Amino acid sequence: MKWWQQACQKPNNLTRQQAIQHQLQLTKPAGALGELENIAIQLAALQATVQPHVDQIWICIYAADHGVVAENISAYPQQVTRQMLSNFAHGGACIAVMARQYQAHLEVIDCGIVGAAVDITGVKRCAVASGTANFTQQAAMNIAQCEQALSIGYDSVERAIQAGSDLYVAGEMGIGNTCAATALAGLLLKHPAAVLTGPGTGLNADTLQHKIAVIERAIALHAPRVGQDALQILAAVGGFEIAAMVGAYIRCAQRGLAVVVDGFISTVAALIAVHLNSAVRPWLIFAHQSAEPGHALVLEALNAHVLLKLNLRLGEASGAGAALGLIRLACLLHQQMATFSRAEVDQSLQ
Amino acid sequence: MKWWQQACQKPNNLTRQQAIQHQLQLTKPAGALGELENIAIQLAALQATVQPHVDQIWICIYAADHGVVAENISAYPQQVTRQMLSNFAHGGACIAVMARQYQAHLEVIDCGIVGAAVDITGVKRCAVASGTANFTQQAAMNIAQCEQALSIGYDSVERAIQAGSDLYVAGEMGIGNTCAATALAGLLLKHPAAVLTGPGTGLNADTLQHKIAVIERAIALHAPRVGQDALQILAAVGGFEIAAMVGAYIRCAQRGLAVVVDGFISTVAALIAVHLNSAVRPWLIFAHQSAEPGHALVLEALNAHVLLKLNLRLGEASGAGAALGLIRLACLLHQQMATFSRAEVDQSLQ
Repeated sequence: MKWWQQACQKPNNLTRQQAIQHQLQLTKPAGALGELENIAIQLAALQATVQPHVDQIWICIYAADHGVVAENISAYPQQVTRQMLSNFAHGGACIAVMARQYQAHLEVIDCGIVGAAVDITGVKRCAVASGTANFTQQAAMNIAQCEQALSIGYDSVERAIQAGSDLYVAGEMGIGNTCAATALAGLLLKHPAAVLTGPGTGLNADTLQHKIAVIERAIALHAPRVGQDALQILAAVGGFEIAAMVGAYIRCAQRGLAVVVDGFISTVAALIAVHLNSAVRPWLIFAHQSAEPGHALVLEALNAHVLLKLNLRLGEASGAGAALGLIRLACLLHQQMATFSRAEVDQSLQ
Repeated sequence: MKWWQQACQKPNNLTRQQAIQHQLQLTKPAGALGELENIAIQLAALQATVQPHVDQIWICIYAADHGVVAENISAYPQQVTRQMLSNFAHGGACIAVMARQYQAHLEVIDCGIVGAAVDITGVKRCAVASGTANFTQQAAMNIAQCEQALSIGYDSVERAIQAGSDLYVAGEMGIGNTCAATALAGLLLKHPAAVLTGPGTGLNADTLQHKIAVIERAIALHAPRVGQDALQILAAVGGFEIAAMVGAYIRCAQRGLAVVVDGFISTVAALIAVHLNSAVRPWLIFAHQSAEPGHALVLEALNAHVLLKLNLRLGEASGAGAALGLIRLACLLHQQMATFSRAEVDQSLQ
């Protein structure tokens, strides 16, 4: 048995029930805080405490390059992956600003970008290879590389737990990775590429049609061999950063650490994680639904609904980052609101 | 000319354009932060600076009682209005927890609850009367009372500006005020009560039908006399706290202070404010759409869209409070994200 097939923790049903009872005592009509109540209750189950908390957030950004960019499917040149690694480490990227605001720990990992070995202070070097192969011609990676990439996520979660984290967020950076994620969703869900494919971070209508054709070719090439084997699919058209996120999500569920899932690419990683180990699912909180058309379908396949729809399409954990304030707020309200008896407020007549 | 008819400030189009240009320089694809970009740009126009900020939030909770509760249209007894005033002042209510989290100033005003004069430390006494009259039988208030209630909001905004606030939030508390707000929307928008009316903070199906009948009776009683005169409508079926919010929104627009509008009742107050003075509209940022069916219709009438849909139905500025973290985050990203040139990141190929 591989490590990712091993058992996950189970959410604590007792603390969930206690949290539900506690919410009923707070000075508001029952259910009046809607999703904010649901989050507090869900986290009470995941953290096995009636008073869940979001004090130490661990955010990990996984970066890698993609051979499929040779097919001209991105609006950005490939060197942007490397440039953004610096921008994460130096505090100028969106998620870096968000991490400061939440006093979260921000880890940045090179999972395999092209070019010379990365030497940037604050960037962890875990490169599997110098980018994946072009998956319109061959598998993006072999199974050994895929397992190595999964283990990058495993290790990050172990560090997060060592540091006492109470919430885990994975984000990604990799020019071309919307294309890879769409191919993954196409193979897993059997939706045609035209239904799933969107502009990513900024294609126009002509280049979008080209991207659809590229993804269709990749699906046609790999589908007969990989079937519905999630690991084979991940190796065939995935990316090192996507595989690392899959590994992280599975390890979080095994260690009992709640996850906030970001946007389209992260949700595809979550789908693969759940295919590899279905007990991962309860550990996932879905933050944001992007405009990318495939996202709604992948969320549906996971029976997931999101907290936010803010029309973000950036990746790098920005959707999760936008939701973190609400998740923390949900816990604070759960902790700090007065009960009916303490505040001497009458309950409903009904 | 009445004070509420006087001119409003105009948003600054130069700083809006500068903020749009600044967003295009930040290290992300153009538009990739969706609503978070829009908020920063909108606030840049409203605060007349290319670097908008949310450092000093002023939250005012307006409370009052409603004669229409004699018709048994609420799930809660009327004394809850008074009890909740204490809960706001003592820090146990939802909005009090939120205000602490944002280090916002929380002002609590009695605009006219029933019973003895309020004597609670931290609650400002501005009672117009001991609750409104039962608007199924007569006007809820006379025009002099309505003007007095409007001025409560005026004064709060003046205090907010005196304190250097950069964002204004109004919230409300008043058992029965969903009923009043629905009657207001019915008279202003000419939608039938059955289309607008929802469970408020917690009616069941039977009592909901009763509430619809009560509102229909009120609309039939007042419609012939008040026509489309927003001030007459407000006096006929409004509440002191709703009128105070109307006054606050108008005064914010006149003083150039950006407003975050809360849920259904606040949005109805915003609709009346815009009817009284159409130049109020640009100053309003809409936070949250509740499950209350009338809310979508009132938002539509204002051509407004919201940041959040979290299924809240509490009032007391909780929906605005949920959005404040995102609004602050939008400003921080606008201020702190690196530009392409500073971070040496390539821009799009297109």
